[in-house]
Order: sequence, then C-alpha cells, then structure tokens
Amino acid sequence: MARYISKLPSARFAETWPRHLALLGSTGSIGRSALAILERLPGHFKVEALAGGRNTRLLAAQALRWRPDYLAVQDEKSALELKRSLEGEPSFRPEILVGPPGYAGVAALPEVDLVLSAQSGAAGLNATYAAVRAGKVVALANKESLVLAGELIRKECGRNGASILPVDSEHNAVFQCLLGSPPAAEQFAGSAGPVGGESLKRIILTASGGPFRGWTAEAMSGVTPEEALAHPTWSMGAKISIDSATMMNKGMEIVEACHLYGLPAADVEVLIHPQSIIHALVEFKDSSRLAQLGVPDMRIPISCCLGWPGRMDSGAAELDLAAAPALSFFRPDEQNFPAPVYWRAALEEGKGLTVALNAANEVAVDLFLRKEIGFMDIIRLARLTLDNWRESSDPDNMEDVLCMDAKARAAATEYAARL
Amino acid sequence: MARYISKLPSARFAETWPRHLALLGSTGSIGRSALAILERLPGHFKVEALAGGRNTRLLAAQALRWRPDYLAVQDEKSALELKRSLEGEPSFRPEILVGPPGYAGVAALPEVDLVLSAQSGAAGLNATYAAVRAGKVVALANKESLVLAGELIRKECGRNGASILPVDSEHNAVFQCLLGSPPAAEQFAGSAGPVGGESLKRIILTASGGPFRGWTAEAMSGVTPEEALAHPTWSMGAKISIDSATMMNKGMEIVEACHLYGLPAADVEVLIHPQSIIHALVEFKDSSRLAQLGVPDMRIPISCCLGWPGRMDSGAAELDLAAAPALSFFRPDEQNFPAPVYWRAALEEGKGLTVALNAANEVAVDLFLRKEIGFMDIIRLARLTLDNWRESSDPDNMEDVLCMDAKARAAATEYAARL
Repeated sequence: MARYISKLPSARFAETWPRHLALLGSTGSIGRSALAILERLPGHFKVEALAGGRNTRLLAAQALRWRPDYLAVQDEKSALELKRSLEGEPSFRPEILVGPPGYAGVAALPEVDLVLSAQSGAAGLNATYAAVRAGKVVALANKESLVLAGELIRKECGRNGASILPVDSEHNAVFQCLLGSPPAAEQFAGSAGPVGGESLKRIILTASGGPFRGWTAEAMSGVTPEEALAHPTWSMGAKISIDSATMMNKGMEIVEACHLYGLPAADVEVLIHPQSIIHALVEFKDSSRLAQLGVPDMRIPISCCLGWPGRMDSGAAELDLAAAPALSFFRPDEQNFPAPVYWRAALEEGKGLTVALNAANEVAVDLFLRKEIGFMDIIRLARLTLDNWRESSDPDNMEDVLCMDAKARAAATEYAARL
Repeated sequence: MARYISKLPSARFAETWPRHLALLGSTGSIGRSALAILERLPGHFKVEALAGGRNTRLLAAQALRWRPDYLAVQDEKSALELKRSLEGEPSFRPEILVGPPGYAGVAALPEVDLVLSAQSGAAGLNATYAAVRAGKVVALANKESLVLAGELIRKECGRNGASILPVDSEHNAVFQCLLGSPPAAEQFAGSAGPVGGESLKRIILTASGGPFRGWTAEAMSGVTPEEALAHPTWSMGAKISIDSATMMNKGMEIVEACHLYGLPAADVEVLIHPQSIIHALVEFKDSSRLAQLGVPDMRIPISCCLGWPGRMDSGAAELDLAAAPALSFFRPDEQNFPAPVYWRAALEEGKGLTVALNAANEVAVDLFLRKEIGFMDIIRLARLTLDNWRESSDPDNMEDVLCMDAKARAAATEYAARL
C-alpha cells in the first residue's frame, strides 16, 4: 500500500513564522529562485545559512544581502576567496564551513528548522542525510538523495521525525495532488479507503521529451553538448539538461517517485507532454485523475515547499490556458530512449544498481560535456555499468552508498576509456 | 475568504459501512448511473428508499432489485401504477409516498444517512432541503438546490450538521482538487494560510461549449430541439442538454460554485474545453493549478460522493491521454452566449434574480422542446424576465423561494405568449 516517505511537518512548524532557513546550493538555479521568492516576502524567512559550491562571488553577494550566521563552500580555496570578498564589511563576520562536513553542519544547525537541499549531484546527499537525521523539514531538490538512498532516508525520517517536501516539479505536482491540502497526509498514509483496497492506482510523471523527442538513436549519435543543452521548455543547469535529453532524468524521477510515495515502479508511468504544463497526474481507483498545472517556473514548486501548508506569492506568471498551445500527450519511445527502462529495472532488482546507474551517468555526462564521448555513449556507459555490476545487496548505510558510488565511477571511467 | 458550504461528513460516517441510501431521482440519468455503481459493490450500500417521477415501470424494476422499504413517486396515479406493478411480488410491500411531501419524507428518514439528490428541476429542491434539515450527508446532483437556495442551504447545514458532497462533474472536480484528500476541509475552511491572505485565487469551470460552439446568435436562431439535444461529449437528460447548448448550464454552475466554495462570482471563471476531459481547475496564490480529469462519465463524480472519503471502483474507463485528442482551451464567447453573464449579474445583484432566471429558463426550455418558441427565444425570455423583475430582496426562506419561482414562471409564460 502506498505510504508517503515521511510524516508531514508538524502543526507547530506550519504555524511558526518566520521560518529559519538553511539554503544548500544557494548559487545554483534552484537556490537563486528560492532567494528570489524570499525577496517578495520580507520578514517571512530568516536565512540562517547559505551553502554554495565554488561561485564565491555570487555567494558573497547573497551573504551580504541575507546576513546568515553561517556560510559553507566546497573547499579551503573557496573559503579563502569568500572571506576576502566579505572583508569590506567589518560588521558581518559569518562562520565559514568547508566541504561535505561543512554542508552537513549547516544542514543540522539547531537554529534551522527548514533546509532547502538544492545542491546537485551526490554532494547534496550527505547534507540531506544530515538534515534528516537532525529531524528538519527538508525541501528536497537534490534528486540523488532519493535515487541513491531512498530507503535509508525513509528510515531516518521515521526515526528522527524529519519531513520531506519534494521540490522537483513532477514530484511536487504529485504532492499537491495527494497531500497539498493538509492534513491529508495522515489520510493518504493509511489510505485503505472505506471500501477496502488502495485508493491510489498510479502516478503519471510527464516529460517534455527533451530537445531530441522523435529522434532515432542513430540520429542522436552525432549531437553536440550545445544541442543537448537547449531544453525546449525548462531553463536548468547543465547536468539536468543533458539528463533530460537522454531521459535519464525521467528514469531518476521514477525512482524518486517510488521512494517518496511508496509505490512499485510498475505504478509510476511516464507520459510525453511537450508543452510541460501538466507536471504530473495521479490516478485513483475510480478512474478519476488529479493533475497539477502551471507555467514551467521552478518558483512554483519551491514556494509550495517553503510556504507549506500555505500558498505564497511565488512571482510566477499565471497560466493562461486559452493562450497556451493545446496540451498533447504521447507514449514514451523506450526503444530510442531506454534510460527509464534501465532505471525501473535497477530499482526493481536492487543490489545497489541505482547507485551504479547514477554514478555511471554522472561520469558519462561529464565526459560528454567535455566532448570526450558521444551523446549515445551516455546510454552505452550506463548499460555497460549495469551489466557488469556485481554487488549482492542494496546499501545498508551511507558509507555503503558512497563506497558503491566510488566503485561504479571507477568502473564507468574504465569502460569509457575503452569506447 | 473562501469557505466551503458545509462541514465534511463526520469520521463516523466515513467509517461506517454499509451506507444507508435514499436515492431521489432513481429513474433519471444520475440515478441509473448510481445504481450501476451499487451493482459493482455488493454489500456496501443498503438502499432504504427510491424516488422516481412518473416512470413507474423502471422504478418498479429498481424496487424489485433493491428492495427498499420506501418508494416515492410524483402523483397518486403513478403511485397506483407502481403498486400494481409490484403486486406479483407478495413478499415485497414497500410504503409508497407521493409528491413533494413524499420526496421530502424519504429524504429525512431516520434510517437514511446518505441522500443522493438527483431529481431534476425545482422538484429536487424541497427534498434536498428536507435532507439538509435532517442533518444527512447529501450527495447533491440537483443544481436548482444551490441556484435557488444556496444561502438557505448553507445556513441549514450549519444549523443541522448536514454535509454537502457535490455530484455535478465540475463541482465535484473542484471538490477533489480542494477537499478530496480529507480532512482537508477544515484546513480549507480556514485557509488564511500561514503567510496570510487567501490561498485559493480562483476556480475555473470548463465547458464543452455544447453543439453550437463557434456559432453566431443569428445562426442559432433556427436550430431545432433535435439539434440542440445532440451534446458532443456528455450523454444527459433533455433539460440539461438544452441548458448546455445555451450555456445556461454553465451560468448556473457559476452560481453553484459560488455557493459551494464561498467565492464571489468574479473568482469563478469559465473556460471552453471541447474535449471535456479536464472538468475544472483551481488556482492558488502561487500560480499553481490543480485539475481533475477523467473520461466524461458521471459514474466518476457519483462514486466519489457515494464512497467519500474512499475511492470505489466506478466502472468508468481509465483515461488514456496518449490516445485522446489534444486538450484545447478557449475563452467563452459572451456575445453569442450571454447566459453566464446573466447568471453572474443575477447572483451579484441578489433580490431573487437567480430564482427568476432559473424559472424563466425552465419555462423557456419547456416551450422550446415543444417547438413553441425558437432556440434564441430562451435567451430573450431570460433577459425579459430579469429586466422586469421587481423584488427588493433575496428569499429568506423556502416559501419565499417557491413564491418567487411561481411569480417568475407566470411572468415568463406571459412574455413568451407575446414573442
């Protein structure tokens, strides 16, 4: 039976303002959108910590605007740069933390109640995990957290009282359909329904299909990073744009949805929807569906999580359906875009295969962006890594995850050299 | 601030099965669909009463199948017919009640906890009112109840603890988006939201546009009842099919939505959607929208109400968006289809104008179906009735409503004679 990954935030959290926010990944696309929302709502959030990667110039500017007591950066060099950038402001002396332990530290700060986990890649995993273990409300934009450690996070939420609010547009759409009117979660969590059985039949994640929708694998073999980065509807970072073009992104989202909503992979479908206006649908036993719609603007799901259970002015434009193109839907082409099939299989088989697939994909996308391998080699590398993976069980703890991740990266790098 | 018309059914109602049902309008389209659902769920409902109009043959067959202790029909002649039809079954001797008092009687039976109010026209109003005063859970398909007496019903729900579950597809869609995951209603009812202000921005009711979408008033002046009865997507009774063709139906639905969800007419929009797949949308302050979708099959909203808060197997087909036509949306043509404008104005001005407009429309549709007036005369009669209406305040009680209704009918009949 479907069960949400965590309990929802407490009534006390829901009612206490301002919220004390740690923003991990503040210099990225999600982080900047989040701060744009905060600008519209003066006094509603107290930014306790900002964590960036290496873009210390932007991080310094954000720090001067929001005056958090804590900052975190990727390495000592960045810490030094950041410190220098702030020297002109003697009244502002935040503590600067460094690297994964630094990120984990700001995620678990006692003064923080809400953590926006928006660092990309496996780097965000540690911080998410730390936030969950510290019992925070976690607005989760980092896909890898669930892809690599969905079960561990579910367990830690149960143990520590943490709550997950999904930021990813598709999962946030499902959240709004199922849980968006609190306290619906309790109902959903035990939704046998009075007539017995399960009310929720399936989740349908939509996908734009990316820039190569309708192409054959053969035609895609020659595409360049520039072509692959040109996403038709969403403006996003490089990694996620490539993942969108290969449909790896949608595969990861299937895994995320299974972890968040407690469903088997067979109950999470993908539907190509080139207009990116309906972000996801849920179908109930009575053949009724609910869908969440909106302009493709990440400020909608971000503000939904930051303001939950209320709704805030996100700054996103209203959807004008009469002016929009007609909404069309197609079955995915699994022959030329097999990534979702790989992800489903990896989730169902377990044995750390989702960790392996994620690592292989990160390695491959990196190589592709550096023009060392071709576009379809991303799929080939993923396949090779899966086919040669030899673990016998799913990771049991975070060390296992990181160890498997490292193994898979090494293997993928080796396969790549042979291509 | 938006407030739902009633509290939701109690937890006790939600958990107690079988449900004891009085089905008013059992021989009509909604009633037959409801019984088709019950057939799929043996043991989940005990039919305590069936009320039909004059189709005693069908009512007798239904009675023999469901064995209720009470039946109700429109007049003594029908009662006699019904009695005769049941003579062959000596073991079955239900009590047969007659006319509006009979309908009201079965709606308020102590053994009944759930009333499906699906009689068409003003006839359903009395029974709905009786059910509400008796504190029942009322699955409401009778539009006139809210159109004529929305405020009275809201008051009586508050006084008597009755609950309304909307069956009309559009309003049920809104219900699912806002309240479908109980106990969300409490939250919605006081949904100031933690960041202040109102979370719900507007409701958008979709309309197929009927068989004459895109026609001018001039072109429509010659249409016959047969043409007007051919609804493109929904299979419905004659009155509602004509109301769909004139868009009177959508105007009434605006009024219903305002009463159900406690919104001003300006916050309830209409959007033409020829495919009838999205039944309604709600828009929140953050520019996020939720929508309810499904094949155009009334068994979905009916089963949603009968099984609330659970979901039952409705028997409706699953929606296959990849096989469906693209979903398109257009602004309504208020020049050639002014009915929704009339209804908005009538609701905003009060003074019994919605009662008058409903009565004029019932008179006009009846005359049109008997080919005594033309199609566009329906609009003319409505307009004339509104322009000449002279009451100074909204009805205060059910007697006022019925009195205004009678006055408006007389006036409309008189105007019709002059056309």
